[in-house]
Amino acid sequence: MTTVGILGGGQLARMIALGGAPLGLRFLVLDSVEDACAGQFAPLLLGDYRDENALAQFSSEVDVATFDFENVPAESAEWLTQFVPVFPNPRALATAQDRLAEKTLFKELGIPVPAFEDITSRADLEAAVEKLGAPCILKTRRLGYDGKGQFRIRDNSPASIEAAWDALGEQAFSTGLILEAFVHFDRELSVVAVRGRNGEFQTWPLTENWHVDGVLSASLAPARVDDALAARAHAYAKSLVEALDYVGVCALELFCKDGELMANELAPRVHNSGHWTIEGSETSQFENHLRAVLGMPLGSTRMLGHACMLNWIGEMPDPTPVLRDACGHWHDYGKQPRAGRKVGHATLRADTPEELSRALERVGGELARKAQVSPVIHALSN
Amino acid sequence: MTTVGILGGGQLARMIALGGAPLGLRFLVLDSVEDACAGQFAPLLLGDYRDENALAQFSSEVDVATFDFENVPAESAEWLTQFVPVFPNPRALATAQDRLAEKTLFKELGIPVPAFEDITSRADLEAAVEKLGAPCILKTRRLGYDGKGQFRIRDNSPASIEAAWDALGEQAFSTGLILEAFVHFDRELSVVAVRGRNGEFQTWPLTENWHVDGVLSASLAPARVDDALAARAHAYAKSLVEALDYVGVCALELFCKDGELMANELAPRVHNSGHWTIEGSETSQFENHLRAVLGMPLGSTRMLGHACMLNWIGEMPDPTPVLRDACGHWHDYGKQPRAGRKVGHATLRADTPEELSRALERVGGELARKAQVSPVIHALSN
Repeated sequence: MTTVGILGGGQLARMIALGGAPLGLRFLVLDSVEDACAGQFAPLLLGDYRDENALAQFSSEVDVATFDFENVPAESAEWLTQFVPVFPNPRALATAQDRLAEKTLFKELGIPVPAFEDITSRADLEAAVEKLGAPCILKTRRLGYDGKGQFRIRDNSPASIEAAWDALGEQAFSTGLILEAFVHFDRELSVVAVRGRNGEFQTWPLTENWHVDGVLSASLAPARVDDALAARAHAYAKSLVEALDYVGVCALELFCKDGELMANELAPRVHNSGHWTIEGSETSQFENHLRAVLGMPLGSTRMLGHACMLNWIGEMPDPTPVLRDACGHWHDYGKQPRAGRKVGHATLRADTPEELSRALERVGGELARKAQVSPVIHALSN
Repeated sequence: MTTVGILGGGQLARMIALGGAPLGLRFLVLDSVEDACAGQFAPLLLGDYRDENALAQFSSEVDVATFDFENVPAESAEWLTQFVPVFPNPRALATAQDRLAEKTLFKELGIPVPAFEDITSRADLEAAVEKLGAPCILKTRRLGYDGKGQFRIRDNSPASIEAAWDALGEQAFSTGLILEAFVHFDRELSVVAVRGRNGEFQTWPLTENWHVDGVLSASLAPARVDDALAARAHAYAKSLVEALDYVGVCALELFCKDGELMANELAPRVHNSGHWTIEGSETSQFENHLRAVLGMPLGSTRMLGHACMLNWIGEMPDPTPVLRDACGHWHDYGKQPRAGRKVGHATLRADTPEELSRALERVGGELARKAQVSPVIHALSN
């Protein structure tokens, strides 16, 4: 009997546990919140990631540890390695947690990135805005996600710089800051990839993503791109996971502009843009993450047709239009509604792009969510 | 928040809970065994199905009740209906639990059945063997499953009748007995069907099954039969569930001989011969059972290619050949090994019969289970 420990008990941990049950695995989830939604389907240990007592109890009950949350302190992950194997390894986690370390690695590996500057003072910021030009984005180096910890600088006026510094300046010595050039991208893409303990590497087909207010709104797979671009994206992901000796599933987010790719960030975990793999692929990202972490052979990542994932933010919509659709699959994370919270998603899966497009028309129409589905329908028509 | 109560906590309850998690449901399983495998992924209430205190606590915590086991006493199900909706309804459960009532219903509905006789005494048995001819099978009317409670009578000699009466005679007034003509069938088939609260009816494609020692060994879907035969099987299932006002998933087991169908039995629950629907269909039998029981729209039952389920009995084989196969899906129920026990299954899913056949060759060869896969490979070659 193998027990997998998961640091963090949100919907990713929940879907990891559900995806791993058929492998005969048991789970233990560590979370500081009593109603963490993974706890509905796996034993939940209440405790803080930083509390050595909680970590000690956790490590004594599991055979291997992994994450549902990239902002678990890398020190906690490192501490755990004294007692149990931890995948992905804490160095990979630490690199992906730090935008400066991450982007420096991208550059070292020859992966194009938007221009960036380390910011440790207001004087740095002024010089960097001058150098990169506006618009540009001031971000915290660590602890940002879903658009949090970011401030867009519209022009290089003193007032704009002042506003950015007011918003984030005091974090220069806690999370650190980085200034990034703003990319007027045509499309956002992601590579969801998995690497086993023995180095076996697989990717799912490239996914196109649409964000609203910094939060993922819709994903389409396979992305409608040419093979050469997809191959380049997959090669970038491969070089990254090999450089980090990464084990498990990760997602590389990319911008595409005029047919050129630029890396945005690496998420060191199963990823929202890979949720469609549950129904749309022979093996889901959740099951393959576990296979990787446990040293099992990886499952096939080939697609079953075409899939679109629609995120539900804040509260669940009426499930009926999705449930009664022949292409529809419903995912309610069992969470309380709250503004901005990811509470569920739907995946529409079809054999052809045309069938998928019609399903999006139906569901988008019945749910009065045309704005959410229309960019995907537009992409499918090209 | 909706909580579904399941009477019985084996692998069927486990897969119902896993299949229902994405619908945002919660579960409570009632079982008398502390290590019931569904308890690894759903809260488990320890208690006996016949204990009114246990049933009362169970009913107070759930919104609807269903079964993972057809031998839950129909009286317990009936008792529960005072407090919560119970699906399938207790009358349907009681009918399916009694081979005599079930076969009488088949006849009333014009569904062909092997000849049978009610047996209440040894004199009945002698007369019935004379009438039906040998070989024939003496069975308990109730509480039989997986070949248990059955005795095959090879010839109509007094010694053979004596042996059968010695084996089962004392159950004539407890479970009741029935004598059934033995059918030299060519093939065994099953219809897995689902009916919603509003009467909506769906079937999955017909499945062909192979048993070893009375226990399911392999299932293939879609069965390689002509459309007219499949349509007849589906019509039988429809007339049955409508006659019983059945709500939920059930399986009708059929014999096929010289192109004619005969009903064997109706299983009033999700069924082992429908396990392939997890990967091989747009919606699994487990999710659709819950949708039916909760009055939700049913999900599409169309197949994704071709699927074969292989049962693991007694102990799990080496998972590696299935895990590394591009068609392979592994299901370990988290049970302790025990002779004759269903401990897991694998499903191989492929886009074509040829691809499925090759996967069966690979997996059967690597696991040294050629006897298990060869009848399926043979069926696929026809």
